[in-house]
Amino acid sequence: MDRSNTVFIGRKPVLNYVLACMTLFKSGHEIVVVSARGRSINRAVDTVEVLRSRFMPNIEVTDIQLGTERLESEDRGPSNVSTIDIYIKA
Amino acid sequence: MDRSNTVFIGRKPVLNYVLACMTLFKSGHEIVVVSARGRSINRAVDTVEVLRSRFMPNIEVTDIQLGTERLESEDRGPSNVSTIDIYIKA
Repeated sequence: MDRSNTVFIGRKPVLNYVLACMTLFKSGHEIVVVSARGRSINRAVDTVEVLRSRFMPNIEVTDIQLGTERLESEDRGPSNVSTIDIYIKA
Repeated sequence: MDRSNTVFIGRKPVLNYVLACMTLFKSGHEIVVVSARGRSINRAVDTVEVLRSRFMPNIEVTDIQLGTERLESEDRGPSNVSTIDIYIKA
């Protein structure tokens, strides 16, 4: 899967990811995917909402995919983490 | 808006909300809405994923709505909080 249009959400401030989305749109991508897992999921939604309300009011959420990933940790054994992929269109 | 089929996600363990969804489906609702805001958003996704992977593999996510609510706090003035509504169908 081509991931060049994906913004992976981590622990940085939301505006970093908002800026990353805007940069991808400016560079010519029509669709940008905001992707997060676990506790970063709320920050993914924040990113889309801040982008829409303050910078790009015309973006459209075209699809949202939820999922589960299996994580293998040596300390605590396997565990599941939820994921979200939010597809936005400029 | 009729909210009788809505599970509001708070700070309790995920399984509480999974059970609440199953109870609503059992009581005859065809659609259940899992609703959360702010930092509870990741728990809303966890609820749907745990429900699907462990208890009701045939449920279908029919729609996901993102939004922003304005909160008025006397301490810190107005602030915005992101919201999610996940529509699931048994």
